This record gives sequence, structure tokens and C-alpha cells, in this order.
Amino acid sequence: MTPEQSVVATAVQAWTMNIERADKLFSSMSDEQLLRELAPGKNRLVYLWGHLVAVHDAMLPLLGLGQRLHPELDAAFLTGADRAVAELPSAATLKRQWDEVNARLLAGFSTFSASDWAQKHTVVSEEDFAVNPLRNRLAILLSRTGHVAYHLGQAVLAPK
Amino acid sequence: MTPEQSVVATAVQAWTMNIERADKLFSSMSDEQLLRELAPGKNRLVYLWGHLVAVHDAMLPLLGLGQRLHPELDAAFLTGADRAVAELPSAATLKRQWDEVNARLLAGFSTFSASDWAQKHTVVSEEDFAVNPLRNRLAILLSRTGHVAYHLGQAVLAPK
Repeated sequence: MTPEQSVVATAVQAWTMNIERADKLFSSMSDEQLLRELAPGKNRLVYLWGHLVAVHDAMLPLLGLGQRLHPELDAAFLTGADRAVAELPSAATLKRQWDEVNARLLAGFSTFSASDWAQKHTVVSEEDFAVNPLRNRLAILLSRTGHVAYHLGQAVLAPK
Repeated sequence: MTPEQSVVATAVQAWTMNIERADKLFSSMSDEQLLRELAPGKNRLVYLWGHLVAVHDAMLPLLGLGQRLHPELDAAFLTGADRAVAELPSAATLKRQWDEVNARLLAGFSTFSASDWAQKHTVVSEEDFAVNPLRNRLAILLSRTGHVAYHLGQAVLAPK
């Protein structure tokens, strides 16, 4: 394994470890458990999970890995706050979508070399990327890895 | 910038961004504000901050960047739970230690090439590293970056 390959594989591993931790936490919850709030008046667990699915779904076009699979989640979990939409997907549906989106991402990651990761993501312009070459695909992966960790830290605080 | 350099610089940038977010949050708090709990009976903000300083301090030897600067923090913030130690450093002291430890780390990171990041960290054996080359320095950096994000997610939930 070259240093280049090792560095990239390590970043994908960090992503995968956070996905697995989140999966373990959220997938084990019933619909009722997912309706618990982090604290009185704060977001519900179901919102955090759906939010992660929507954010990860949006990574597909951002990384050049194809169209979104579930843009219909945005109203409930991304553009609006928790409770903006009354009817939410069931735990079983969210689990299916979560697995589907993360599997699609991981399949894409497995095809990326260091050079692919260092390329610009699709939302930054060629001009801006020339000025700041760190606006690359890997920056998206690392940012979203931190985003999972951020909400995991919150989710574990919910009263049991 | 080669892909290899870009990938490594992107990882250090993700670390730095999380450090800056945590700095902005914790450094602005008074001693009194730091004594707030995340939620009734949960950790206090001062514990999270001191915990981050202690964990980052321990990264120095782990990454081969020298001895620890503040092992005295462990009893209050790492080996014990919150409130295990009655007398805690002031906000001003924690801020000085936080800045000192993170500056020392960043100075070290700036000397690391992709090849340096891909080397084993100091706690894994040569034998174990041969089996799993992803037990490298970069894995520590990414894991600790996620660790900052995890506790940041918690810290923002503390009642204002």
C-alpha cells in the first residue's frame, strides 16, 4: 500500500466507523423510541436520523456519484426544522433508505483514487477551486464524517 | 499541489476547522458559564473542554511529537468522570493550555508528509501494524477530529 492509498483508505475507514456507530444507535430503535427528544423542546431522534439520510443522499451529486435517491426527505429533515412536516417515514423505511444511500456512497468511494479525492466537488467553480484546491471531494467526506459524529454526540444524550 | 499533498492538507484543514469551532464556543465562556450542565445530571461544559485538552495533549506522544505537556489534567478530565476532582483549572488556564497543546500539534502536523501520516502511531506494535496498515497517524487525526465534533454537538445543547 502506497502512502497515498493508505491515506485515502484511512479517511474512508473513519467515515465507515462513524456510519456503523450511527447505524448501531438508530437502527436498534423502535418508531416510538425515535420520537424521544434530545432534551425538552429539542430535536427528536427521528429528526437526526432522517437529517443524516438526507445529507448523505445529497453527497451523491456533490461527489459526482449520480443523482439523489431521496430528495423527498428534504422537507421533513433538511430544509425545515423538526416538526415542520407532520408525517414522517417509519423506522423501517428510514433504515432502508439509510442503508441504500450509504451503500451507494461506499460503492463510489471504493472507486476513488487519491487523485479522484483531490478533485473539486461539483458545487465549487473551476475558478474558486483554482484559488482553494482544498475545496475537494475529500473535504466533503471529512466534513460529513464530522457531521455524523456531531449528531451522534447529541443522540447519546437523549433520555433512555 | 500533488493529490497526495492535497489529501493530507485537507485532513489537517478539517481538524483545524473543528478546533476553531470549539475555540469559538468554549473560549467565549466565563468560569460560571462553563459550570453549566449539558442537561440535568449530565457533564458540565468545563468537563468537555478540559477533556478535549487532555485528549489532544495525549496525541503528542501518540503521533511522535514529543512528551505530554499537561498530564496533570487526566485525573479531572480523562480517567475520571465529571466531578471526580473538586478543584478545576480556571477558564483562563484551560484556554492557555488548549492554545498551547493545539499549537504544538499543528506545528507537528505541518512537518508531516503523506508518508509520515501513513506511518504507524506509537501505541500499535510493528506486528499489528503489518496486519492493519490503517492503524496509522492519520487514523488518530481523523478519530480525534470526529471526537471534537462529537462533543461540540453536545456542547451546543447546553441551556443558554
